[in-house]
Amino acid sequence: MNLILISEDDLVGQNCVQLQGRRLQHVMKVHRASVGDELAVGLLDGPCGKGKVTGISADKLTLELRLDQQPPAPLPVTLILALPRPKVLKRVLIAATSMGVKRIFLVNAFRVEKSFWKSPLLSKERIDDFLILGLEQAKDTVMPEVRLNPLFKPFVEDELPAIIKDTLALMAHPAAQHPCPRDLKKNVTLAIGPEGGFISYGIEKFISLGFSPISLGVRPLRVETVVPALLSKLF
Amino acid sequence: MNLILISEDDLVGQNCVQLQGRRLQHVMKVHRASVGDELAVGLLDGPCGKGKVTGISADKLTLELRLDQQPPAPLPVTLILALPRPKVLKRVLIAATSMGVKRIFLVNAFRVEKSFWKSPLLSKERIDDFLILGLEQAKDTVMPEVRLNPLFKPFVEDELPAIIKDTLALMAHPAAQHPCPRDLKKNVTLAIGPEGGFISYGIEKFISLGFSPISLGVRPLRVETVVPALLSKLF
Repeated sequence: MNLILISEDDLVGQNCVQLQGRRLQHVMKVHRASVGDELAVGLLDGPCGKGKVTGISADKLTLELRLDQQPPAPLPVTLILALPRPKVLKRVLIAATSMGVKRIFLVNAFRVEKSFWKSPLLSKERIDDFLILGLEQAKDTVMPEVRLNPLFKPFVEDELPAIIKDTLALMAHPAAQHPCPRDLKKNVTLAIGPEGGFISYGIEKFISLGFSPISLGVRPLRVETVVPALLSKLF
Repeated sequence: MNLILISEDDLVGQNCVQLQGRRLQHVMKVHRASVGDELAVGLLDGPCGKGKVTGISADKLTLELRLDQQPPAPLPVTLILALPRPKVLKRVLIAATSMGVKRIFLVNAFRVEKSFWKSPLLSKERIDDFLILGLEQAKDTVMPEVRLNPLFKPFVEDELPAIIKDTLALMAHPAAQHPCPRDLKKNVTLAIGPEGGFISYGIEKFISLGFSPISLGVRPLRVETVVPALLSKLF
């Protein structure tokens, strides 16, 4: 937690906030905060800055806010991600959010196990928890948008054409001839398959819409490795 | 397991191997192998190629080998990594190995919790298990070398100068002015601090030896995210 993320609901005055629960525990145990200390604070979907500790009791901590900075710039990328297994999903959502991804479509694919779609980790509440962990890590305040698309064909045929409009559409594919491009300064849509990759049907669907297959090399990587590796190389 | 990694001990003839235990389970459950199938096989620290299934019984599977290919090229990098918490260490070792890192020094630092050094995950056997998972993922056969250095000062002063000789020495540091370089074609030594970073003493030690501080941007990232992100950007 490199930034304490607060919401409008936490405000107890124009520039004052009271922390309880998880954030209070963290500030006391990890930051070992004392009255007078300044901590990094951000308002969800708003500015960030500092909070000066003005009071500490057993069950709450009061901060006086000075939120005069903008959150870090987002990455100009939309992720189309075949739903990974729940534990991996958690790590991928935290990593992608910490790197500045703001739009993620979790989609079905032939090699996605049906049971993954029934995981309690897919509830909006749990997903928001992971996104918040990513924001707190990266000192960001802007919540990403995550959408679930359990049906591959309708998503690809009906929604994806509008999503990729005016973007460079890339599909990670270990067997692709073209290496992953570097240092892009444009909007990108990046599709990443499940462990084992998309099957030919999926690959052809993406290519027919205009996606270019790109590769990071001959080494197949885990989804949780390939997401930061691709984002870092692309931007 | 994209490659079945075998050792000399598994050979039952010049070109024949018998799988049992974890690898047998995987080949039967995930690959759903039948007699005649060809599977990707590699000899630990040796060549890789194909294994044709010639026999399956309840407790073993026999493969006839044709190992006529070289493993993928390694990354020309030595990692100097402040010991992360054990669960993160596991993921970082798998990720770094899968990306082709062949030499990793796990070092102490002020912000490394003392308890991490007592973790059973630091036994040679457990570390080798993680490295093998990384090799199997990336279809590689060459075991990385991992060394533990629980004393920061003697490591940095006595060993590090020889390690960085003839390499570009880089230290990841979120507050660095210089961005992480891209597309390097030279040998690199890359130092990555603990969560919260190296303290000034450590940073100055590295800089005094010739390390250049580099940054991936204003977003602080988790160790498990920053390792693939840095490796991918550098090479």
